[in-house]
Amino acid sequence: MQRLYERLFYSTSVNEIFSDEAFISKMLAFEASLAKAQAEHGLVPPKAARKIEACCKIEKIKLESLITQVALGGNATIPLIKQLTQLVSDQDPDAAKYVHLGATSQDVIDTAMMLQVRDALKLINSELNQLIVHLAELVRKHQHTVMIGRTLGQHARPITFGFKVARWLDSLLRSRTQLNDLLQQHMVLQLGGAVGTLSGMDKKGLKVADSMGKLLELKVPPVSWHGQRDRFAVIATTLGILQGNIGKLAEDIILLMQTEISEVFEPAVDGKGGSSSMPHKRNPVGSIAISANSKRIPGLVSTMLLCMSGEQERSTGSWHAEWETLTTIIKLVAGSTSQAMMLTNGLEVDAARMTHNLELTKGLIYAENLNVALTPHLGKADAGKLVDKACKLSRQRDMHLKTVIEQDTEAMKHLSKKKLNEIFSAEDSTGMVDEFIKKVMKLV
Amino acid sequence: MQRLYERLFYSTSVNEIFSDEAFISKMLAFEASLAKAQAEHGLVPPKAARKIEACCKIEKIKLESLITQVALGGNATIPLIKQLTQLVSDQDPDAAKYVHLGATSQDVIDTAMMLQVRDALKLINSELNQLIVHLAELVRKHQHTVMIGRTLGQHARPITFGFKVARWLDSLLRSRTQLNDLLQQHMVLQLGGAVGTLSGMDKKGLKVADSMGKLLELKVPPVSWHGQRDRFAVIATTLGILQGNIGKLAEDIILLMQTEISEVFEPAVDGKGGSSSMPHKRNPVGSIAISANSKRIPGLVSTMLLCMSGEQERSTGSWHAEWETLTTIIKLVAGSTSQAMMLTNGLEVDAARMTHNLELTKGLIYAENLNVALTPHLGKADAGKLVDKACKLSRQRDMHLKTVIEQDTEAMKHLSKKKLNEIFSAEDSTGMVDEFIKKVMKLV
Amino acid sequence: MQRLYERLFYSTSVNEIFSDEAFISKMLAFEASLAKAQAEHGLVPPKAARKIEACCKIEKIKLESLITQVALGGNATIPLIKQLTQLVSDQDPDAAKYVHLGATSQDVIDTAMMLQVRDALKLINSELNQLIVHLAELVRKHQHTVMIGRTLGQHARPITFGFKVARWLDSLLRSRTQLNDLLQQHMVLQLGGAVGTLSGMDKKGLKVADSMGKLLELKVPPVSWHGQRDRFAVIATTLGILQGNIGKLAEDIILLMQTEISEVFEPAVDGKGGSSSMPHKRNPVGSIAISANSKRIPGLVSTMLLCMSGEQERSTGSWHAEWETLTTIIKLVAGSTSQAMMLTNGLEVDAARMTHNLELTKGLIYAENLNVALTPHLGKADAGKLVDKACKLSRQRDMHLKTVIEQDTEAMKHLSKKKLNEIFSAEDSTGMVDEFIKKVMKLV
Amino acid sequence: MQRLYERLFYSTSVNEIFSDEAFISKMLAFEASLAKAQAEHGLVPPKAARKIEACCKIEKIKLESLITQVALGGNATIPLIKQLTQLVSDQDPDAAKYVHLGATSQDVIDTAMMLQVRDALKLINSELNQLIVHLAELVRKHQHTVMIGRTLGQHARPITFGFKVARWLDSLLRSRTQLNDLLQQHMVLQLGGAVGTLSGMDKKGLKVADSMGKLLELKVPPVSWHGQRDRFAVIATTLGILQGNIGKLAEDIILLMQTEISEVFEPAVDGKGGSSSMPHKRNPVGSIAISANSKRIPGLVSTMLLCMSGEQERSTGSWHAEWETLTTIIKLVAGSTSQAMMLTNGLEVDAARMTHNLELTKGLIYAENLNVALTPHLGKADAGKLVDKACKLSRQRDMHLKTVIEQDTEAMKHLSKKKLNEIFSAEDSTGMVDEFIKKVMKLV
Repeated sequence: MQRLYERLFYSTSVNEIFSDEAFISKMLAFEASLAKAQAEHGLVPPKAARKIEACCKIEKIKLESLITQVALGGNATIPLIKQLTQLVSDQDPDAAKYVHLGATSQDVIDTAMMLQVRDALKLINSELNQLIVHLAELVRKHQHTVMIGRTLGQHARPITFGFKVARWLDSLLRSRTQLNDLLQQHMVLQLGGAVGTLSGMDKKGLKVADSMGKLLELKVPPVSWHGQRDRFAVIATTLGILQGNIGKLAEDIILLMQTEISEVFEPAVDGKGGSSSMPHKRNPVGSIAISANSKRIPGLVSTMLLCMSGEQERSTGSWHAEWETLTTIIKLVAGSTSQAMMLTNGLEVDAARMTHNLELTKGLIYAENLNVALTPHLGKADAGKLVDKACKLSRQRDMHLKTVIEQDTEAMKHLSKKKLNEIFSAEDSTGMVDEFIKKVMKLV
Repeated sequence: MQRLYERLFYSTSVNEIFSDEAFISKMLAFEASLAKAQAEHGLVPPKAARKIEACCKIEKIKLESLITQVALGGNATIPLIKQLTQLVSDQDPDAAKYVHLGATSQDVIDTAMMLQVRDALKLINSELNQLIVHLAELVRKHQHTVMIGRTLGQHARPITFGFKVARWLDSLLRSRTQLNDLLQQHMVLQLGGAVGTLSGMDKKGLKVADSMGKLLELKVPPVSWHGQRDRFAVIATTLGILQGNIGKLAEDIILLMQTEISEVFEPAVDGKGGSSSMPHKRNPVGSIAISANSKRIPGLVSTMLLCMSGEQERSTGSWHAEWETLTTIIKLVAGSTSQAMMLTNGLEVDAARMTHNLELTKGLIYAENLNVALTPHLGKADAGKLVDKACKLSRQRDMHLKTVIEQDTEAMKHLSKKKLNEIFSAEDSTGMVDEFIKKVMKLV
Repeated sequence: MQRLYERLFYSTSVNEIFSDEAFISKMLAFEASLAKAQAEHGLVPPKAARKIEACCKIEKIKLESLITQVALGGNATIPLIKQLTQLVSDQDPDAAKYVHLGATSQDVIDTAMMLQVRDALKLINSELNQLIVHLAELVRKHQHTVMIGRTLGQHARPITFGFKVARWLDSLLRSRTQLNDLLQQHMVLQLGGAVGTLSGMDKKGLKVADSMGKLLELKVPPVSWHGQRDRFAVIATTLGILQGNIGKLAEDIILLMQTEISEVFEPAVDGKGGSSSMPHKRNPVGSIAISANSKRIPGLVSTMLLCMSGEQERSTGSWHAEWETLTTIIKLVAGSTSQAMMLTNGLEVDAARMTHNLELTKGLIYAENLNVALTPHLGKADAGKLVDKACKLSRQRDMHLKTVIEQDTEAMKHLSKKKLNEIFSAEDSTGMVDEFIKKVMKLV
Repeated sequence: MQRLYERLFYSTSVNEIFSDEAFISKMLAFEASLAKAQAEHGLVPPKAARKIEACCKIEKIKLESLITQVALGGNATIPLIKQLTQLVSDQDPDAAKYVHLGATSQDVIDTAMMLQVRDALKLINSELNQLIVHLAELVRKHQHTVMIGRTLGQHARPITFGFKVARWLDSLLRSRTQLNDLLQQHMVLQLGGAVGTLSGMDKKGLKVADSMGKLLELKVPPVSWHGQRDRFAVIATTLGILQGNIGKLAEDIILLMQTEISEVFEPAVDGKGGSSSMPHKRNPVGSIAISANSKRIPGLVSTMLLCMSGEQERSTGSWHAEWETLTTIIKLVAGSTSQAMMLTNGLEVDAARMTHNLELTKGLIYAENLNVALTPHLGKADAGKLVDKACKLSRQRDMHLKTVIEQDTEAMKHLSKKKLNEIFSAEDSTGMVDEFIKKVMKLV
């Protein structure tokens, strides 16, 4: 992440969770809880554990020196343990031998990352909930705001804006469930030692794991998972799906903000989205940031899936490729959620423009209604012919289809004035949007 | 899919589910159930519905003509409905107008794909269950088969083969749960008409949907989902995770089959994996096919995530990109599952070779044990120095570390013969593998 | 590839190049040329070579049996050589021992694929040239067809349609060069035997390679390349870039065909892009197919890049993952090129609509022109204020900005009638489009 | 990029090129050269240009304020121009109006990125050249160091280590050419103004561009390329290919460093790759970093390809997604090149171990030699049978194949002692490795 974009594509609060310092703090939390748990089970003298815990403070760590050494050992644990051991040793040489006892580099890093992930998911979840609140409000407010539905870029038939938002909402409700499932099920401790067998803890490793789980508020998995990366992969894919759902919403807003359409606008924020040289412009800045993220996330998720095929008891590269990839995914999706939450809060909807746009095809969007109304009287074939002819006339003469029909004596034999109005009414053409909305809103 | 590889990377039974004919059959099943459900709710005369149903037979469809026309309409529904309408019309011109009533192309295609997905997931699930059975057997059989654990390609410490398999198994048990969740929750009907509002069914669309759900054994979602593609994306990611878990197992087998390691072999099948010109070769053909799939799936899944950002009420390309991508993912993962099931059935494990390989470092893998044993007597620093020196000597003289220690009077002051044997015993160095295995096996 | 979509996303002529039969024919071409070249250099008796060549006929191969056996050997060469050897042996048992002499499976498959690639690239190149011709025609025809330029979905300033097309064209000219480079440089023979050393050809292997190169019209590379996959990867990336360039064009057409914009339309083809129930719709079917391909290609290319990290002298999965991935890339890009060629032939441009759309912001797109004109008279700050005020007034009163300015006495002190017309003239605001167009057209 | 990994996956010198400060410096270089060039062509008073140039200093820019504002405008240019205008205005209010005259945000960002890319590619190129030197040295040194060639993880036939390195080298020579082509052809200026037409520079824009090209040492492209992203995509794919070629080398080293193989080792660096608790371990730290990058690059490149389909005259997200993606690709590939350069400098090759490993199959790797030698005497069928039988015997009795043959009277009728030695000689089985090496080395 370049700092330059830390507020555009990202969320500053989640960025902080993934700073180098924050990561090392989580690693130290692992080491402190390890010593404490091992003391609980008699593997480490309580006094030594207290010394270790006291040294597990980020302020005591020399970051620059650590960064330099990461390239030698190939991961951040090795130089951290070196520094930590020295710190403890300076105070109590005897206690130093209990630092990181029986654990392995990957135990520390996997667990520290899991702790970061958990904190981040909670923040994302909270913003997602806020986003859901905003969307539910928009549904309520615009349940009956009629607009044209567009398929393949073309005017199709009327919907309501509330219905459109309800469909966005529906998908986000599933993402919320999935996010909660993650928080419930996938936040686990990693503790196995060199090859995952807990061989260095004198048969007390599982008890130590249980105690650490309690201390760190992580679940204890059935078995250490150094080579089984599905949990991290599921985190990545679940967030990939969330990004997809948010990206869909952003894509729609970008399209609705096009000058020619101008039906919906990101909320006006002073200095946001403007162009000094082009005063008429109102750029969809928030949606664009989300849309950019939607283009970046799929490739990053593919890397996480790829990294599942790591070698033997610890992989030669796959594990290492996860580090920045997973954190980037989480940070970007946090940014998207945050942007979506902001831009749906006060989203401007131009209902008049929607009404205006509904008439752009001069009634042709109601041709199918006409067809349906005439078929019982004329049969499918003849009704079809009549409507086709009317549509052509409407286009040739640039005349509203309704007017064309009003002048068609054959058609008017079968259609009352009231029926004709109904046929050409957007409100009467929105089908079961209310029922659909109701079903979605029940789930909020 | 090239036919040439239909048995290598794929599973023939799942391939069949995704043949063009099978797809069109599912589309016809949609149309038949639509007519039937609409008859139930008075939208279609029962007689017409029966005629339509009678015509919804794959044998009646001219496939070549359909293929030619797909390029004009941009999807398979348009020409299919044309053919179906003609078929019905030939028998009963009046019934023809009820064909595909109020539905849209995407309703048909999404639902047909969902039906294919369901059938395929069931087959994959069944083979996954069989794979799980094979792995559980391997765990039982090799719980105590000691082998070296390898990290970063290097000998680390002993594990058992049963422990290794239990870790594979653990991840697959999670995939099984996820697959079952998919089958329970994500198999839904698509029915919305042109813009998803069910406007063409005279306010009876939701009832029609309920009836169709029963007929097709699909859940009825809260709202139509033409623009919300997360369900298809979740299917893709869940299978991506399954592939990752299976790919990990294949990667390990490939590595263990290396000539220098030769600890595990795919079961011997006549004519499989041999090389006429190199009689000593035994190629990991099944694992290689799985490994190839592991390289293809992540990119395909990334496309599915990307396709979630479709435009408005129906997208201009994203939806279309899903078609072959999703089916390819499913077909490849089915192939991987099938290959894994086959190769774990009768997997050959050379326990003697494992024992032999454990000694390749001449005891150096036990240096840490030695360290732990001496530290209480000498302190960490001195114990460390002693062991380091012994290790160097062992390497220089190409002598077993145990022998070096036996000749070290300082060390032998503190170590009994029995203790020494224990230190250099692989069996005694596998930590808590039994407990871990027990915890995993409980979940099978 | 599903046959259903063989004309939508693909090109039938390139599909044929990659049929199973066509692939096996190329493999047989390899074997025939190998025998012939070896005869030339005394490794094979001429009579035996002729026998082998005579048997290298696709009609003689039993495809179904071959397909069944691919799964055993793990590639298509093994069963093919078995069949070929039998065929030769049936005619001349002695000649049979010279079949596939000193070659390895990968020699055959890599070379056969290279031959397919070459044929396909030639076809793609030919359609790309036709596409370039169409675009050059559009540039000439619409050099002065003024339209609004759109940035971030918003009206920005005027361009010409010719300028837009010239920018598409500019990128495709680079792709053409890159494609020609591929055809000149990357079409090479693979011949190395089991580990790439040509050890099975009695020191005559390089001469055999030279002769085969001549027979197959492939370049002979400095060294066999079983583990160096950059040539196939470059083919994939070059086509990925071509797809990107074509996809950009399709994306623009999709946007310009939106009902609200309606400036450009894919050529009308009977039965194409219509919707029976929505007569006003004209779907961008060709562009959508291209757009779908643009979403599929990046993931596929990523697989090809990934496959470059294959193991040792032949990889365990990476090579195998290339087979269908590379062919799918080529087939999809061929489809995109074909669709683009078709849809640019007779692309409909509605210049009147473009003129109409230019006025949608009621002159606000010219605010910057006004600014520039007033600054020398009022200074930047005052000019800016005046223009800002005028723009606001224009919006509030829904009045054309030109009218607002005409009523502003301060502004009109400094602007002649002629100057004012110039400021609000689209034609006068297109900058250096003619010069840019000229520079691009020189390169066609 | 996390700082923690700035030396592991990255190269610090290239990291610096892409720091926020360095990026803004390049943006300022754009603005300075714009003013200077415009002064040259009479668009800006020379004095104003000098003032602007004097203010284009990174020290004068308030970075924190800029970062905060990026999120409002959606890119870094908008707040930078604001600051720059203020700086100039503070010194000379009149000069301020000439800041950024006629340019657009994307002109600045694209050009600044191009300048960064150029600097980075030069550094990468220089390290690639050094890597090539190291590999050429290894080829010379180990041209005759015989080792086993491995296919599908299995012993196949002998090669030399020099041959293996020559194949790595061969692919990197192509990458070098491609990198040089990039530097020659793709380093271009972006200058077009709001919609790419240079409408804000009074018909002098192309001359301004020519002057800027000279000042910034960038080529001037035929037309502005805001929507044509193939140049950036080609940079990404070319580096993706380079990563692939380097990744292949790293993969091989990782495999050769496996404990069971132990033929090749990364050079010993104090404190590098060791494990305190496992003294026998020597981890392939550099190769692992490269391998991790190989897993990350393909997904990132896929994003760059995807971003080519941007909308109209400036895209809504695609352009924005390029920023961090392209820089990450370049930084990672620079890291890989750097690691490869380091680890090939003093790569340890254990020729004795290679010789030892050649005998692991007890002569079975020479079975094909035997076959070839006996066929002229016994015919293919009988020779085959004899060899098969001998191989089986060798395995059953764990006896060297040569010894088996020596005891086979039938075989020994046709084989002299000398011939037998030749058959079982690794040196005599390496085919044309010398010739291949010669051909590659000519290209260095």
